[in-house]
Amino acid sequence: MQVYFSDVQLRHAPHEFLVRGRWQPCPEKPERATALKSALESAGHAIATPKRGDDTHIAAVHDGRYLAFLESGHERWRALPGASELIVPNIHPNGRPRGHLGGYPQSVVGQAGYHMADTACPLGAESWKAIRASADCAIAAALMVRDGAPAAYALCRPPGHHAFADMAGGFCYLNNSGIAAQILRGKHDRVAIVDVDLHHGNGTQGMFYNRGDVLTVSVHADPANFYPFFWGYADEAGEGDGLGANLNLPLPLGAGDDDFLAALEIGLRKVDDFGAEAIVVALGLDAFAGDPFAGLKVTEAGFRAIASRLGRLQKPTVLVQEGGYLCPELGGNLVVFLEGFDAL
Amino acid sequence: MQVYFSDVQLRHAPHEFLVRGRWQPCPEKPERATALKSALESAGHAIATPKRGDDTHIAAVHDGRYLAFLESGHERWRALPGASELIVPNIHPNGRPRGHLGGYPQSVVGQAGYHMADTACPLGAESWKAIRASADCAIAAALMVRDGAPAAYALCRPPGHHAFADMAGGFCYLNNSGIAAQILRGKHDRVAIVDVDLHHGNGTQGMFYNRGDVLTVSVHADPANFYPFFWGYADEAGEGDGLGANLNLPLPLGAGDDDFLAALEIGLRKVDDFGAEAIVVALGLDAFAGDPFAGLKVTEAGFRAIASRLGRLQKPTVLVQEGGYLCPELGGNLVVFLEGFDAL
Repeated sequence: MQVYFSDVQLRHAPHEFLVRGRWQPCPEKPERATALKSALESAGHAIATPKRGDDTHIAAVHDGRYLAFLESGHERWRALPGASELIVPNIHPNGRPRGHLGGYPQSVVGQAGYHMADTACPLGAESWKAIRASADCAIAAALMVRDGAPAAYALCRPPGHHAFADMAGGFCYLNNSGIAAQILRGKHDRVAIVDVDLHHGNGTQGMFYNRGDVLTVSVHADPANFYPFFWGYADEAGEGDGLGANLNLPLPLGAGDDDFLAALEIGLRKVDDFGAEAIVVALGLDAFAGDPFAGLKVTEAGFRAIASRLGRLQKPTVLVQEGGYLCPELGGNLVVFLEGFDAL
Repeated sequence: MQVYFSDVQLRHAPHEFLVRGRWQPCPEKPERATALKSALESAGHAIATPKRGDDTHIAAVHDGRYLAFLESGHERWRALPGASELIVPNIHPNGRPRGHLGGYPQSVVGQAGYHMADTACPLGAESWKAIRASADCAIAAALMVRDGAPAAYALCRPPGHHAFADMAGGFCYLNNSGIAAQILRGKHDRVAIVDVDLHHGNGTQGMFYNRGDVLTVSVHADPANFYPFFWGYADEAGEGDGLGANLNLPLPLGAGDDDFLAALEIGLRKVDDFGAEAIVVALGLDAFAGDPFAGLKVTEAGFRAIASRLGRLQKPTVLVQEGGYLCPELGGNLVVFLEGFDAL
């Protein structure tokens, strides 16, 4: 399968993030991408460096102020007296609806809190270049599928599905899956994003929550006790034009292949009812039993079955890398997934 | 003037908070309260320990789940593997309206993010007792005024005006001024809270934003470049029944006595138009030129004038301590304020 990846993506390398009140080594490391890439090379996939995509593909789904923050916020942050090397937010418009009265802060401290949902999206001096290159992979893969290829895979890293139109979170900055879906919309009237990452795709959900043309489906660990905590519940069904075009399928912590495949089946029935003409797979590999996040217990055979089921849809499909963290099986699981997808 | 204070309030002593990506010593120290108390004693004020107030006074303005979190969250936090000594949130329902679909997390990590707006409200093992005792001062002072005293002063510490009905923030946990206002409402149809703290009283605003019976007025440093960043703008006027019952008077950073007094005059015209029968003064002393937060430049003479103007309203008044941080003049400024208030 055609794979897109750029070494520029390795330049985002935050050394730490804050969780449970302590700085911890950041598991979203460049080494994730090199492990995935090596496995793909060994398996004989063709890897291309994407061209720089047109900015309009990104601006079509992301807010202009947010993009300005991602691009230039770090320089302004570093100019603050006593500021840390990485941007880490410390105050948030918690519970304040977007677009509510009340201003948009000029202070980069305020902007960081406005545009970041959590302390797991540290932003350093080189981050923007890597974030942009990651999105370029999604753009290249989506254009290829839009223009007739049956499928393509974007080795996006940093990942994207926790990024909202105007907010980063959970190691994500630009929503690569959302960007790909919007590109497919240029050809197809109805597109579905199927998110099989361990974590709920809250950013993707938020991005399309009021739209009836892009269905968002996510199978994930129950957020009542798992990141992202505030999104991913079964009652979140979309709003306005998007009512009925969001489906969350939370699984109990520790659920394995059978539960995952059963939920996926429900999700794909929805995709069928919706009449999706093209698909984006938000391809996290962290539902794996051996993943450091230890939320679900999907096996290698499970990934093969999930992928095979998605391949049998026989729709134009962009596969976009989301989570999946360092463990010996990470690269192998990706190879198995792509094999399963192509197995028809 | 009658003063309420309890030594139990000193038991909340978080050693640090996170700002600009770094842990910093927490300026909201127990020594603030002892400095204020000593100055009051030297000036001859009578200091009484408040009785434990009735829980219903707190529950009248605060959310039950939030109170449960404040009371028992720390024990659950400490049971998490690798958690810090103090509760510090790391993920927030940023931009998600309260009461929106989507669940309330069972995880204390999720609950911390739901109930804390920022990383400046660390919660330790002894914090709840001190927070409750601080509220007891406000309850005792408000009951005294409700029952006929012209004025009373609550030496509340930790402070309260950044605490919403269901959310802590900015060193604040229970909204002591809001609790006092609600008690005054038991006797008076219309009550005004006048907040002269350096920072916008965002929690108080939020607590009464939809109510037409409690006017909230705040004079503060412009939030575009100052904490709390997302609240305190001039266009926030209240909603529903509360439309017109919130007035924000932001001042440019560095403004001094004249600007402050001119804004106060506008605020008090609003208090008059509103027909307030009783007043709560949210008495921050951090607008002082020598305060470590260095946002405004009010002088000792300014505090005397502000207090005198409030005293001339000749309304039953509860004075509730909010911010004001350690500097040589802290206690003296409080004494001057109470003198000014009583100067008629």
